[in-house]
Amino acid sequence: MVTGRYDYIRDPAAIYRESERMIRDATDLSAVPEDLRTVAVRLVHTVGRPEIVSNLIGSDGAVAAGRQALTNGAPVLCDVEMVSKGIIRSRLPVANDVLCTLTLGGVPALASRLGTTRSAAAVDLWQPWLDGAVVAIGNAPTALFHLLERIAEGFPKPALILGFPVGFVGAAESKQALAESGLPFIALTGREGGSALAAAAVNALCGGLSE
Amino acid sequence: MVTGRYDYIRDPAAIYRESERMIRDATDLSAVPEDLRTVAVRLVHTVGRPEIVSNLIGSDGAVAAGRQALTNGAPVLCDVEMVSKGIIRSRLPVANDVLCTLTLGGVPALASRLGTTRSAAAVDLWQPWLDGAVVAIGNAPTALFHLLERIAEGFPKPALILGFPVGFVGAAESKQALAESGLPFIALTGREGGSALAAAAVNALCGGLSE
Repeated sequence: MVTGRYDYIRDPAAIYRESERMIRDATDLSAVPEDLRTVAVRLVHTVGRPEIVSNLIGSDGAVAAGRQALTNGAPVLCDVEMVSKGIIRSRLPVANDVLCTLTLGGVPALASRLGTTRSAAAVDLWQPWLDGAVVAIGNAPTALFHLLERIAEGFPKPALILGFPVGFVGAAESKQALAESGLPFIALTGREGGSALAAAAVNALCGGLSE
Repeated sequence: MVTGRYDYIRDPAAIYRESERMIRDATDLSAVPEDLRTVAVRLVHTVGRPEIVSNLIGSDGAVAAGRQALTNGAPVLCDVEMVSKGIIRSRLPVANDVLCTLTLGGVPALASRLGTTRSAAAVDLWQPWLDGAVVAIGNAPTALFHLLERIAEGFPKPALILGFPVGFVGAAESKQALAESGLPFIALTGREGGSALAAAAVNALCGGLSE
């Protein structure tokens, strides 16, 4: 066993248990809908900020819809590879596919042709998998806007959209549009978000922090 | 050109410019040391929170040391693949290697033998590359603690340590230990951190947001 000059917990299971205890102590979950609380704990764990739970919203039955979709074998569609890398593969119920189309060779040219970002253009490549999928957007507001536009135009509907785009330009607005879309969703309102939060939301569909 | 039901900026360059303008408007950079301001803007961009800059600290000349190391061809050593995925490869000055040893086959057994986390055990595999490297830690406090312990025991010294572990158990303490280590560093104090911030710090060494 390693011991060193610093005194800290080295056992991974103990770290998770102590994290969950500290998060539940520090976080006011009373205003969070019961079915979103597992998601809330994971999100707080991911960024170290209990305050974010006041911005967590979701449509009725969103968590159940996402869990059912994953159990049924739905793929997870991610806007950026960082989201994909943050998803704990061993927790996915049936070794679900996790896809990110952003880095495919044709995407920059498609983005130029469409006059939009690569992240938005990459959403067009999701069409064959969208029906009943779990979508996790952790970076680009334009990807979320574009997805909502394509669905309004006739693209298949996912089982759940996890909306965590981040930043100053369009992030809050894109999540507002998601909340008003009538589609099943979980999102963090405002500017805050990120790929780690989007991945954590997927992981939360697969179980709690210290399970 | 695509146009849709939502009104939002679709041009990537315009998004970056508008982001930078909004961040500089919303962020009090006066308390941030001059050489850390480019880093500060990138970090705020990454999480959508101007408030974080009050927790940004670094040793004297840290940014210059990191830039020089990258220009000299130093590798970037990452604790998790999410950090590696967030580094914009096309911005690295000499196509620097970006390494993450966490997913190598022998790491779980090494972690068991050492009685620590996989993230900490993976740091032992950095030894051949550590001398003059840029280290980016965005997830595990145990990885940062373990690195500091190994360096104290004789591992080579990196040119710069970017300390952004996150969470409730050990994150604040590990960054405090980093700040007191005498090693060149940039860090966000407290519980806040994450792989996107660690990657953004590397990207900031390679230039500003809208350059």
